[in-house]
Amino acid sequence: MTPIDPVALTADLVRCESVTPAEGGALVLLEKLLSGADFECTRVDRNGIANLYARWGRKGANRTFGFNGHTDVVPVGNIKDWTVDPFGAAIKDGFLYGRGSTDMKSGVAAFAAAAVDFVRATPPDGAVVLAITGDEEADALDGTTALLDWMAENNERMTDCLVGEPTSPNHMGEAMKIGRRGSLTVWFTFTGVQGHSAYPHRAKNPLHAMARLMNVLGSYTLDDGTDHFDPSSLAIVTVDTGNPATNVIPAQCTATVNIRFNDLHSGDGLTAWLQDEANKVAAATGIDIALRVKVSGESFVTPPGPLSDLIGKAVQAETGQVPALSTSGGTSDARFVKDHCPVVEFGLVGKTMHQVDERVPVKDIIQLKAIYARILSDYFADTSR
Amino acid sequence: MTPIDPVALTADLVRCESVTPAEGGALVLLEKLLSGADFECTRVDRNGIANLYARWGRKGANRTFGFNGHTDVVPVGNIKDWTVDPFGAAIKDGFLYGRGSTDMKSGVAAFAAAAVDFVRATPPDGAVVLAITGDEEADALDGTTALLDWMAENNERMTDCLVGEPTSPNHMGEAMKIGRRGSLTVWFTFTGVQGHSAYPHRAKNPLHAMARLMNVLGSYTLDDGTDHFDPSSLAIVTVDTGNPATNVIPAQCTATVNIRFNDLHSGDGLTAWLQDEANKVAAATGIDIALRVKVSGESFVTPPGPLSDLIGKAVQAETGQVPALSTSGGTSDARFVKDHCPVVEFGLVGKTMHQVDERVPVKDIIQLKAIYARILSDYFADTSR
Ligand SMILES: [Zn+2]
Ligand SMILES: [Zn+2]
Repeated sequence: MTPIDPVALTADLVRCESVTPAEGGALVLLEKLLSGADFECTRVDRNGIANLYARWGRKGANRTFGFNGHTDVVPVGNIKDWTVDPFGAAIKDGFLYGRGSTDMKSGVAAFAAAAVDFVRATPPDGAVVLAITGDEEADALDGTTALLDWMAENNERMTDCLVGEPTSPNHMGEAMKIGRRGSLTVWFTFTGVQGHSAYPHRAKNPLHAMARLMNVLGSYTLDDGTDHFDPSSLAIVTVDTGNPATNVIPAQCTATVNIRFNDLHSGDGLTAWLQDEANKVAAATGIDIALRVKVSGESFVTPPGPLSDLIGKAVQAETGQVPALSTSGGTSDARFVKDHCPVVEFGLVGKTMHQVDERVPVKDIIQLKAIYARILSDYFADTSR
Repeated sequence: MTPIDPVALTADLVRCESVTPAEGGALVLLEKLLSGADFECTRVDRNGIANLYARWGRKGANRTFGFNGHTDVVPVGNIKDWTVDPFGAAIKDGFLYGRGSTDMKSGVAAFAAAAVDFVRATPPDGAVVLAITGDEEADALDGTTALLDWMAENNERMTDCLVGEPTSPNHMGEAMKIGRRGSLTVWFTFTGVQGHSAYPHRAKNPLHAMARLMNVLGSYTLDDGTDHFDPSSLAIVTVDTGNPATNVIPAQCTATVNIRFNDLHSGDGLTAWLQDEANKVAAATGIDIALRVKVSGESFVTPPGPLSDLIGKAVQAETGQVPALSTSGGTSDARFVKDHCPVVEFGLVGKTMHQVDERVPVKDIIQLKAIYARILSDYFADTSR
């Protein structure tokens, strides 16, 4: 049979307007392709979010290689800043343009194409699973977690999983990701007593407490990095008061801080630290400081082993590069998959993701399919697993 | 004739929604009252701001006692925090409630009532002037200065002036004000480079520089006070960013600081200090820090003399208290009047001014009118002037 063209498949997917939470036709299109290649497909929708589970081969096979990815995309932003239709999938000068072209419809197209070709050409002794979600870019409450919940209920499993997110900063093959930093957001509310700025002793100024606490947090060194991780980082992302009167000391202000943390920290540990620093400033200033914390993900790492070796060798064979084992960058659905089986991320160059004129070199899509194909054949060739 | 009820007049004024720059009907109401008592009234409006000049008696009289005050009020703040309608003038448990009830519609009502009764009952050999503005709480560019400019052009003058702002911290009669601290406002703009909070090394976060500089300024001791003055004080009044995305480091934030300074400082000296501290933080952080400074008034003092003696004796006679000669508190229009004639401020207890549930004891309004009445009769009784 003719091999699947991953470039045409990427273009078809880009033309689906699947801005989270819209399915946009992307999963319907993939289900059609995969069903036609004897994948057993199940739509695992939850709370209005579309997800697709596709398995070729026997359920519960000892060797089940899984791919995970998402078809939803972030909004286009200011449409006037685009030089092309964000959902047009135009190809110009060797680049395929469009929202999601990098993050990560080409990744999904590459692993779907590789998997279909592979099971058709050399049916393996085992199973291949594609777990594809429509909810990664927003809250991710009903995306990959919905797929994993459903898999647990139905005794579906992967023995290893590759997440096809972009992983390289500049050139194909530079890096795979074996873990991710955790992410924590804290919303502070400082409450004092409003008053006239000429009589500061009658008011209690929440902004002085804010400056004090933010200066403590902003100048604190959380750590200097670990074996597998960059240093943890803390960013004050917004401080707001909304007081239009220069002669009024306001009663309240708010501040939001985001922390990306490595394996020296946990969400609970950081929450305790934040509460402690807030308590100190509250005690010193008499200002009430309330905080609300949300841990979007704990840090995690899949220690280097058979899976990262497998992927590293395939990448090296196709690109000539030995990919670094990275843990940098934002969160991804690997944070959910890690509780199910060993997981590594490998994909394209992420440079233009979430930007206007997001685009991907056509040759990178072709190379990515080749890498994924080699991973599959190497994985099932190694009968020691 | 029936004496004017200063409580009813205060209530009528509170019901006028005269948040700067709105006239709200307050000056129209006063003009009607004063015209009816043979005051020659002139609306001295400038750039959309309403002001009222009212004179009883001959222009240019050697003895012309003036009262100065304002009818504009600060915004109500969070309306949900009020237990009464801020413009309802409700009277409960001996208090009259409302925005401006203390600062300073009751002061205006008290001197207007005292002046009307006085000229009707005992027409003096001289003149009584009321110079009332609708622009004191905001920039004060077209308020009392507009009145003084118009007076100069029209050969109108006051030989002495009492500003009716609140002057006592806790009890009626505690203090009059013979000078004021200066006031300076600085608007900072911190500009860095926007970026993703997962990649803080690619961004330059202006909020960390803001926290550092605000903490330096907010914890600095400017001085410990002087003979006539309290210590200078600094208040951070607002910090704003408006960034809704917790995963984005914003490019810019703003902060506003207000300084009330005594005779150890000048606007120029403080501006140089602020620029210097901003430069240090900019150099240490790589964040661009722009600042715009406005000096609303330098510090000043009217040395104790005949006017403060007159007021002190009247206050003592009505309250039993000898008022202290103070220079504390915010700026007032006395900073403009001081260039025209000797000026002293005396008025109510300022406790709740600019706060939610601003209120004034009804008996204090009545006592204030009595004090102002005694000042007028003592002033014109002393023919040595
Ligand atoms: Zn993605
Ligand atoms: Zn006032």
